[in-house]
Amino acid sequence: MTIVVLVVFMAGAKDAKIKKMMADVKALKIQGAKNVAIAGARMLKISAEQSKAKDARAFIVELEAVSKKIVVLRPTEPALRNGQDIILSEIGAMKNLSLQDLKIKTAKICDDYVLEVQSVLGKIALLGSRIIVDGDVVMTHCHSNNVVEILKAAKKQGKKFKVIVTETRPLYQGKITAKELADEKIDVVYCIDAASASLMNRATKVLVGADAIASDGSVVNKIGTYQIAIEAKEHSVPFYVACGTHKYDPMTAMGYPEPIEERGKKEVVGKGELKVRGINVVNPAFDVTPKEYVREIITEIGAYSPEALVSILESENRSRPKRG
Amino acid sequence: MTIVVLVVFMAGAKDAKIKKMMADVKALKIQGAKNVAIAGARMLKISAEQSKAKDARAFIVELEAVSKKIVVLRPTEPALRNGQDIILSEIGAMKNLSLQDLKIKTAKICDDYVLEVQSVLGKIALLGSRIIVDGDVVMTHCHSNNVVEILKAAKKQGKKFKVIVTETRPLYQGKITAKELADEKIDVVYCIDAASASLMNRATKVLVGADAIASDGSVVNKIGTYQIAIEAKEHSVPFYVACGTHKYDPMTAMGYPEPIEERGKKEVVGKGELKVRGINVVNPAFDVTPKEYVREIITEIGAYSPEALVSILESENRSRPKRG
Amino acid sequence: MTIVVLVVFMAGAKDAKIKKMMADVKALKIQGAKNVAIAGARMLKISAEQSKAKDARAFIVELEAVSKKIVVLRPTEPALRNGQDIILSEIGAMKNLSLQDLKIKTAKICDDYVLEVQSVLGKIALLGSRIIVDGDVVMTHCHSNNVVEILKAAKKQGKKFKVIVTETRPLYQGKITAKELADEKIDVVYCIDAASASLMNRATKVLVGADAIASDGSVVNKIGTYQIAIEAKEHSVPFYVACGTHKYDPMTAMGYPEPIEERGKKEVVGKGELKVRGINVVNPAFDVTPKEYVREIITEIGAYSPEALVSILESENRSRPKRG
Amino acid sequence: MTIVVLVVFMAGAKDAKIKKMMADVKALKIQGAKNVAIAGARMLKISAEQSKAKDARAFIVELEAVSKKIVVLRPTEPALRNGQDIILSEIGAMKNLSLQDLKIKTAKICDDYVLEVQSVLGKIALLGSRIIVDGDVVMTHCHSNNVVEILKAAKKQGKKFKVIVTETRPLYQGKITAKELADEKIDVVYCIDAASASLMNRATKVLVGADAIASDGSVVNKIGTYQIAIEAKEHSVPFYVACGTHKYDPMTAMGYPEPIEERGKKEVVGKGELKVRGINVVNPAFDVTPKEYVREIITEIGAYSPEALVSILESENRSRPKRG
Amino acid sequence: MTIVVLVVFMAGAKDAKIKKMMADVKALKIQGAKNVAIAGARMLKISAEQSKAKDARAFIVELEAVSKKIVVLRPTEPALRNGQDIILSEIGAMKNLSLQDLKIKTAKICDDYVLEVQSVLGKIALLGSRIIVDGDVVMTHCHSNNVVEILKAAKKQGKKFKVIVTETRPLYQGKITAKELADEKIDVVYCIDAASASLMNRATKVLVGADAIASDGSVVNKIGTYQIAIEAKEHSVPFYVACGTHKYDPMTAMGYPEPIEERGKKEVVGKGELKVRGINVVNPAFDVTPKEYVREIITEIGAYSPEALVSILESENRSRPKRG
Amino acid sequence: MTIVVLVVFMAGAKDAKIKKMMADVKALKIQGAKNVAIAGARMLKISAEQSKAKDARAFIVELEAVSKKIVVLRPTEPALRNGQDIILSEIGAMKNLSLQDLKIKTAKICDDYVLEVQSVLGKIALLGSRIIVDGDVVMTHCHSNNVVEILKAAKKQGKKFKVIVTETRPLYQGKITAKELADEKIDVVYCIDAASASLMNRATKVLVGADAIASDGSVVNKIGTYQIAIEAKEHSVPFYVACGTHKYDPMTAMGYPEPIEERGKKEVVGKGELKVRGINVVNPAFDVTPKEYVREIITEIGAYSPEALVSILESENRSRPKRG
Repeated sequence: MTIVVLVVFMAGAKDAKIKKMMADVKALKIQGAKNVAIAGARMLKISAEQSKAKDARAFIVELEAVSKKIVVLRPTEPALRNGQDIILSEIGAMKNLSLQDLKIKTAKICDDYVLEVQSVLGKIALLGSRIIVDGDVVMTHCHSNNVVEILKAAKKQGKKFKVIVTETRPLYQGKITAKELADEKIDVVYCIDAASASLMNRATKVLVGADAIASDGSVVNKIGTYQIAIEAKEHSVPFYVACGTHKYDPMTAMGYPEPIEERGKKEVVGKGELKVRGINVVNPAFDVTPKEYVREIITEIGAYSPEALVSILESENRSRPKRG
Repeated sequence: MTIVVLVVFMAGAKDAKIKKMMADVKALKIQGAKNVAIAGARMLKISAEQSKAKDARAFIVELEAVSKKIVVLRPTEPALRNGQDIILSEIGAMKNLSLQDLKIKTAKICDDYVLEVQSVLGKIALLGSRIIVDGDVVMTHCHSNNVVEILKAAKKQGKKFKVIVTETRPLYQGKITAKELADEKIDVVYCIDAASASLMNRATKVLVGADAIASDGSVVNKIGTYQIAIEAKEHSVPFYVACGTHKYDPMTAMGYPEPIEERGKKEVVGKGELKVRGINVVNPAFDVTPKEYVREIITEIGAYSPEALVSILESENRSRPKRG
Repeated sequence: MTIVVLVVFMAGAKDAKIKKMMADVKALKIQGAKNVAIAGARMLKISAEQSKAKDARAFIVELEAVSKKIVVLRPTEPALRNGQDIILSEIGAMKNLSLQDLKIKTAKICDDYVLEVQSVLGKIALLGSRIIVDGDVVMTHCHSNNVVEILKAAKKQGKKFKVIVTETRPLYQGKITAKELADEKIDVVYCIDAASASLMNRATKVLVGADAIASDGSVVNKIGTYQIAIEAKEHSVPFYVACGTHKYDPMTAMGYPEPIEERGKKEVVGKGELKVRGINVVNPAFDVTPKEYVREIITEIGAYSPEALVSILESENRSRPKRG
Repeated sequence: MTIVVLVVFMAGAKDAKIKKMMADVKALKIQGAKNVAIAGARMLKISAEQSKAKDARAFIVELEAVSKKIVVLRPTEPALRNGQDIILSEIGAMKNLSLQDLKIKTAKICDDYVLEVQSVLGKIALLGSRIIVDGDVVMTHCHSNNVVEILKAAKKQGKKFKVIVTETRPLYQGKITAKELADEKIDVVYCIDAASASLMNRATKVLVGADAIASDGSVVNKIGTYQIAIEAKEHSVPFYVACGTHKYDPMTAMGYPEPIEERGKKEVVGKGELKVRGINVVNPAFDVTPKEYVREIITEIGAYSPEALVSILESENRSRPKRG
Repeated sequence: MTIVVLVVFMAGAKDAKIKKMMADVKALKIQGAKNVAIAGARMLKISAEQSKAKDARAFIVELEAVSKKIVVLRPTEPALRNGQDIILSEIGAMKNLSLQDLKIKTAKICDDYVLEVQSVLGKIALLGSRIIVDGDVVMTHCHSNNVVEILKAAKKQGKKFKVIVTETRPLYQGKITAKELADEKIDVVYCIDAASASLMNRATKVLVGADAIASDGSVVNKIGTYQIAIEAKEHSVPFYVACGTHKYDPMTAMGYPEPIEERGKKEVVGKGELKVRGINVVNPAFDVTPKEYVREIITEIGAYSPEALVSILESENRSRPKRG
Repeated sequence: MTIVVLVVFMAGAKDAKIKKMMADVKALKIQGAKNVAIAGARMLKISAEQSKAKDARAFIVELEAVSKKIVVLRPTEPALRNGQDIILSEIGAMKNLSLQDLKIKTAKICDDYVLEVQSVLGKIALLGSRIIVDGDVVMTHCHSNNVVEILKAAKKQGKKFKVIVTETRPLYQGKITAKELADEKIDVVYCIDAASASLMNRATKVLVGADAIASDGSVVNKIGTYQIAIEAKEHSVPFYVACGTHKYDPMTAMGYPEPIEERGKKEVVGKGELKVRGINVVNPAFDVTPKEYVREIITEIGAYSPEALVSILESENRSRPKRG
């Protein structure tokens, strides 16, 4: 059904650039919560520029419709939803401007949002880099800009450490991580996911990104993260998460479970391969790591235990208007 | 160095069939402790048939030399070593026979050994099948004949259960397991290795094979087994191992660590891929699961805790002559 | 001594209805924090209606005296104490009204409080129901309206799940739970308390109510809850608590231990039975489950880890006047 | 089906005394592995005395038939099965005697068996009593003669300790334990099963009996034992089991799971009570405590870890003839 | 290098009294965060009194310089840093006063700070004493005024309990604790640090002080605390920390690791002793106990889980001006 | 009382050399199970040489009396008891020899026993050294010849590793260990006992000696061992024990607890220091580490899990005559 919605929408998209971005977001070519949120803001900006609305009211209605289509591209991505919420509520507050002024403001709002999101990365990199010490062996999983930037910052500070990178089946995002780190002359040990338990006794820290933080302090991240968290606990290796606070999903406080995307079987097995009666190939994209496995979450506002982070964010969320 | 030895030896092999078998054993085309042990016995038999030795003494010396070359093909395989030990000590006990009689006897000893090893599988299948009950969801990893035969036997007994099969990177032996089970109309859930932690809360049992049992009750098996064992313990899911007693490696009681084969990088990454300065691709073929993770080991002589099994086997080993 | 106070008070109660309610509260006929808090509000309302005080000041003094007697009926029930605090502080704020107006307002304050408490249940039911998913097997203990309403709401949403209900010795409140769930056509497995460990491997979630939440995130609930929490942790089954925020006891932040009521031996053994010299029958009504066993607490303001919930509530409590 | 067998058999029983014993065994009036095994031996003796067989061969055939009926009374009791095996194999070894001599010998074999079983208790009491030290607080569950005798012996040695006794729903065997201990002037704390977790922090040892020991070192005992074992592990309180070696069930080494008797619902709920559509009352009589929870098993041949005990017993079992 | 700074500073100190205090702080003669913070305030006060500055501005500059030297005496002591921050920011807010007024105010600010810090102890003693109950066996480590005052307060309330005191190598601060408690007629068991694991099964609570609280809820305290925390967790003995909220170090939220002072080898081994090539004597003064080991932290504002405490303090910290 | 016995005995000792040895054994100057057992054998030999018995029978009676006095010097040392048992039973078997022959034989029996015990060390060193691998960081506690010899052997094999040595209060045997290892050019990190938890994340193995092995697989060793075992388990660092099989104490299988020597307070506190009313200085010399913390025990007959080792030794013990 999601796909149907997408097709309908993409047929209605007037602009090749947006079409391309949407397809890239949908196909996971644009990856990582930050990049997806930024792409969402940029798509809104392009839509605003191309809008043929006759007045401010129609303009806002149009943008809201576009935004709904954008959100549906990655229904499990709270950062995308949060970003669209923030931008639309700022636009909505200017509904009394003239259409022309509104268009100019909208472009600025989108640009500012992108800048702010981009600055998050720098803050996290700085904070997180302080946690790395000489001699560390940091295990990471999948690809996270926050993790890579932390490690790069630590390297620039002259710290000496190694990184164990797991390949992260089925899409091998570990390769991206390994290359980006090696480009910075960071020593990398690269292995299959199933080797993480054996290598855990060499690790001094685990550091991963997150796709979402839930109200009970759980961390939703790429499939395989929970496995590494269990291994880290079994070896008393501290488990760090690095992500912007936009990853916190306040809907989880209302009881909504964080949806776990089930992706296509073809990512796991070749076309037709194992298409045997009785074999059910499952491919969950994420898993959930409960609070007791997580030492702290490194965000742009500080590094806290997941429990403390949630209560700090909740008190702030309460003052922000919610989308309908 | 091992490779050098192999090359030297293979140059010296007079027979295409043995050469082929040796290459297959070396290249992991012949897989599984049982198959390798049987191949070892068959290679001895062929060597005996082709022997040009002039007398019984020379015949035995020749066979011992061949056996050393066979053992070196898979230096980390205790079943192969154990099998060669047993056969050679039986041949050695007949050194007073005429050369002709000795050749006949040797063929028979090799055949008997193969039959005995082959019967182990049936006994394990029967014992192990009793452990499966209606409603079970059994997680397994890699490919083990013992595991497959247990599950097939349980299915034939009319038991209703599912099996979760992990793909087992880098060589995907999980595919073989999935197909063999599906052929018997057993329901299979197939997933990447890193999904095992998320699926563990659905599993009622874990059942894997073993490459070696150490004297401290540790189980050496395909890389990824230890990871699943940790997850199983964290969820109080009992962890069963199925293997013949020939997997017990008495050398570990003498302090020798069970060697963990480090295999080629190409199994993990494509040719040239990630051949970046600073990236060290590691590919250990096995890992070690300590006794406290293992509920019991199902063997042809009974199902016991690893600790009890080792002491039962040790008392038997003490009465058998050891190879020099 | 508590009993003496009660007797004295009940002798002084002028009204049969209040007497009856007080006896019921004392005898646990009125059960559950919510029902007790509501009964407390209603008793205050009746007292206000029957008051023969000559002026507003005397009226308030009288109500405060009554309230003290009400609180002492269940000295270990924070919800009762919290409710009385809230009502009395609102009445106190109106001390300048005429006696007649004050009486009318008092009735309204009591009614409003009851309505608010009653709405809590609906909110918790909605939030909590979102956590239940198809295929769940939910273990519960004792009887909690919050738990029952969550499960009923989930059932109405068409979700398919089972519930394991423990009988909850010595008073068998599990029977009430089992019947209420079965009336809604929810599948129930009913068992003795001591069978919970054996059945835990079938459970996917534990969901219980709470009598009090302490400042360290501990949950005080019916005896047997801690046992189930330990079993759940041992099997990595997430442990949920459902209760209104009025269960939070801010006195615990001041170091006061949550009192654990020791109830009569006759609940455990028949009259005279085991009245043997040397046998000490103990009957604690509640036990304490520390934070590390609790995944999240589902309240009317959201579902949070116990640690986050306490800090959210503490910041709110700080702005409310405290009773002397 | 078991019941049908029983009815048929009891119809065929010629003797009121045996009928009574059989009914008592079946109805759990004769309880405890030892008592059941002794009753089995006595029933065989009475049958032998009343036999109208014409010759030794017919006599043995008759006894074997009786024995099969005895075993089926309690199909989950390895001690009964073991005892019948031992007696019948000794009788079988005398098949060449005259009928009259055989009858005399049979009576003696049965008597000797009873004496030997009875002496086990004394040996276990002596060994086990040495483990109790001044200041101990020993938690026990259900009723076990071995446990009671150990504690009585320790008391007689002048040791000062307390015992926490759980009531053991549904049949309250804890009452028997509490009374027997109090009769010996041992201090007893008596509580419901669900209070064991709360009281565990006062316990210094747990000591329970066993219905069966499995080949993986698991202990099968009254439902609720596993719960206490988990609690004991969580508090690092050592968990001791006291039982005769006849409780070891060698069939488990052949993969046979120890059967867990599911008993009638009426033991749990009153007649008709909770007979509501959708409520499934379950009443497993036993549960299984895996090896890692058990510090040691105290038997008449010594106190060992479960793993060591199994391997010691297995080496002895191998030399005893097995029943067909 | 720290030593060099100290030497330089001490050379510049004009006053013997300050010199003495500084030497005492440096040499750990003045111990405990509270005492060090108070000494810091007093040194500032003396410096202010002796100041020869010509105007308010120069006075403030001078005090800031002195303060920097004070902080560097114990760079790992957040309470000292926090205290200096608070005093200096209050002085800074009065920069428009005349020099004479400013001097008077400064003395008062320093005195008030000392009074406030001193009152913290009383509040913690009161709160914490409520947690102690009759029959408790409290294990403590090192010397903490908060712990001693809690136990003294509980004793004065007539509670009956014992305290296990570990000697706390290398400086044996446990002796001070033992004596102070014995002076109050509290029963003390005194032992070497390495005996704590063996004695843990007798303890009902662990209660220690803290040198710093980190933003992830970790507790930094005297070396050996983490060891006792692990043992307490292994035995399910609740682990309490008592300290003022000034121990919270907000710099840790910015990713700064709490520095662990490495102290001189002579504290561990006699002069010259073990000065053998290849032997590296290490002497970390503190260790880090992560949140999951800590039941609650008892502070002057309440007793909370570490996670809740951090978020409560963070919301308050955000409104206080930070030092540059 | 033990002291009284000693005084009486020493008064009766006829020989200065024995007196000296006895005093040294008693005063822990002769340390380590092996050295004590050897000293015991040598004292028997000297006694035999000095014997003035008139015939073989009196000679044996005399030696038995001496042996009893020797055993009582270190009542908690099973190796001493085992050694005396073995020597006396061999002497007893020769009671028909002439007195002169018996004296000669006795000397030889004692010498042979010493040689055998001494060879144990070499075997353990060889076996254990195989377990050390390049890059290892081995934590050890107290002083054990077995541990030192293993590490020296591994060093001689060219392996590169570090050793963390804890000082081992109260008697600082860690200093001996540190010096002996440094003499062999092994890198040593030396720290107080309480630092072991903090350093555990750097350790790859723990290796300690043992004073006794109990029948449940527990290891009795110097106080502080259990603490390190808990820390090792918490960090999944494998815990190895190295000791001769003469450390197995078969009395524990009979329920006898391994006695834990309580040593004088002066070892812990200076003379008179802390001699305050209400302070009870305790000084247990040993603690008990249960089986689940121990990966394997390295002995002269092989390296096994504690459970397997006990059952192997028990089967051997059964064939040896026991002392009365």
